This record gives sequence, structure tokens and C-alpha cells, in this order.
Amino acid sequence: MKLLKDRILAEGKCFEGGILKVDNFINHQMDPELMYAMAEELAHRFEGCGANKILTVEASGIAPAIMVGYILRLPVVFAKKRVPSTMEGVLTAEVHSFTKNRNYTICVSKEYLCEGDRVLFIDDFLAYGNASKGAIELTEKAGAELVGMGFLVEKAFQKGREEIEACGIRTESLARIASLEGGVITLCE
Amino acid sequence: MKLLKDRILAEGKCFEGGILKVDNFINHQMDPELMYAMAEELAHRFEGCGANKILTVEASGIAPAIMVGYILRLPVVFAKKRVPSTMEGVLTAEVHSFTKNRNYTICVSKEYLCEGDRVLFIDDFLAYGNASKGAIELTEKAGAELVGMGFLVEKAFQKGREEIEACGIRTESLARIASLEGGVITLCE
Repeated sequence: MKLLKDRILAEGKCFEGGILKVDNFINHQMDPELMYAMAEELAHRFEGCGANKILTVEASGIAPAIMVGYILRLPVVFAKKRVPSTMEGVLTAEVHSFTKNRNYTICVSKEYLCEGDRVLFIDDFLAYGNASKGAIELTEKAGAELVGMGFLVEKAFQKGREEIEACGIRTESLARIASLEGGVITLCE
Repeated sequence: MKLLKDRILAEGKCFEGGILKVDNFINHQMDPELMYAMAEELAHRFEGCGANKILTVEASGIAPAIMVGYILRLPVVFAKKRVPSTMEGVLTAEVHSFTKNRNYTICVSKEYLCEGDRVLFIDDFLAYGNASKGAIELTEKAGAELVGMGFLVEKAFQKGREEIEACGIRTESLARIASLEGGVITLCE
């Protein structure tokens, strides 16, 4: 998606350890018009996938997910990163974050991720695929089916796509980063 | 806003300590069409307020904020609840959560909340006004001005509005809860 690729090249910042920051328009300050355009593109790619629900993980996944849900007219569930004290019947999965170098638990209520659900997962970044594997685990535990995973930005050199596609799940992303070596952002293709 | 009030009465759940859960359509599973309608109403109420930026706090504030930002064509900044290791030049404020009975720090980069900014704050809940006071503190530290604060649901019996209005800031909410006594949801008016 050219609009997104141009913004990444113009405003993305590289940090050590293969970190790409797009805080100016996705992860801290968000550009709602770009967000809507990205959601339209993801919705278009997953048209007819048969999903009855969108799943994401707080916090950065919420903005793209709510807009994809709005366009596709589907409810949006966000997995939480802390188990709320008032939540009963919770499904959990452990996730390792390379960026933050720590483990965290994501959780979702059994009320909102159920047997028979056909789930489209939406998130901002695909890197090593750890959050995605957590979402796959939650979906399996619920007895639901993942019909696709859509991301705004994919760090192709961190191989998350291979992990997801090995599970037989269709994966789409709007901008693929080939390399951040030497602090230079190189896109795929 | 009748649409929201009806959903709260039909699907809201009360817990001890004045907690109202609306996990079915706002805080865990979200109804994107209702979210858009609520954002339209908030955008309408704050039309002409002169804001150049929306501010919210992760995670539940992000969905209403991105939609208000989309409708008003304004960038949306979300304050984070953990100071990222790669973030420099950070403004912070301490917030006490009564619901979770703990303190947390919210932070925002100086790059995205700046002197001269005219800020419209959007969040899901107004209770005791602690997150709001954190947002007021961040805005003051940045040298920016808060032109209004808009909420989906207000727990009027927890007096957050009084705290905000004492700072001279216009406050709007779409549904006001008068009481949750005895596990019964009573709306204002």
C-alpha cells in the first residue's frame, strides 16, 4: 500500500535490535485518515473470508481493528494484557515480546471468543509472530477458527509470517520491511 | 444518547464497589457501529471548539478517540501506561485507579503534546476523574490547553465531573449513571 510505504520511508525511525518506530502516525500519535484507508485495504483483502468477529490485542491493535470492524460490520474483541479482577471464564496465552524483552499474558473472556467463531485477527505489527501465536492459542482454546491475520506493517526479516503460514492461516500485510540494517529502512519489492 | 443508554440498561453489569461493566459493547467486545455513532455525537458536541488534536489514554479510550479524530479530521495521541524504553523527552503523570486499586504512570512524548496545542480529551469512562486529572497534568506540563473532555459513560455519583469543571474545562458525556446501588443501574434524568 503506497500511502503507508511512503509514510514509513518519510517518518519511520530505526532503533537498535531491529526496532522500527512509527510513533508519528500509528503507535503513539495516529493519523485517523490513514488508519481508515489502511482498514479499508485490509477489509477489501479479507472480503468474503466468512469472519463473524475481529480479534486484536490492546493497545496499538485497537485502532486498526475497530475500523476494519466498522467497515465489515463485525464486532471487535480486544485481548487484554492483564487479567481483570472482575473477569470470570478467561482464556489466557503467554506471549514473549522481543522489543520489550519480557513475557506477558494476554487474555480474553470465553463469553466473547467462542466455539464456532470464525475470527479475523488484526494488529499493527507482525515481527516474530509472538503476539500472533498467542492469538492462535486463544482461538484454539476457545474452539474457534482463525480465518486470517492482517497487519499494517510486517518486518519480513523477523519471520513471523512463516510461523503463521505454517499453521495454515492466510496472512496479509500492507507494508513489508525487508531490512533495517545500518538504520536504513528497506522495503520489500 | 438514547442508543447508548438502552444498551447500558440492557447489557451493563454491576459489581461491588460501584463498578459498571460494559464488556459486551465497549470495554472488551466493541460494537463498531455504536462506537461510530457515539463518536459522531461527541464530535457534534465539540464542533467549533478549536481543538487541533485529540488526546486519550490506552487502551479503552483508543476506539472512541480514533473515530472522533476521523470525523473531526484531527490527529489522535494516546498516552501510554508504561514508559517505552525507546521513548525520549517524555511527560508523565501519576494516576490512581479505584477500580484496580493501584497507581500507574501515564506518559506522552513531548513531540506529540506541545506548547500551543489545543487538546480535546476523549475517554470511555468518567468516574472519579483520576485519569482525567492525569491528562490535565500532562497537558499543563506540555504548555498545551485542554478545550474539552468527552466521555462515553459518566458515573455521576463518583464526582469526576466536579473535579474537571473546577479546572474550568468543558465536560460532556453521552450517558450519566446516577446510581448502581443494590446492583441496579439508574440513569440520570
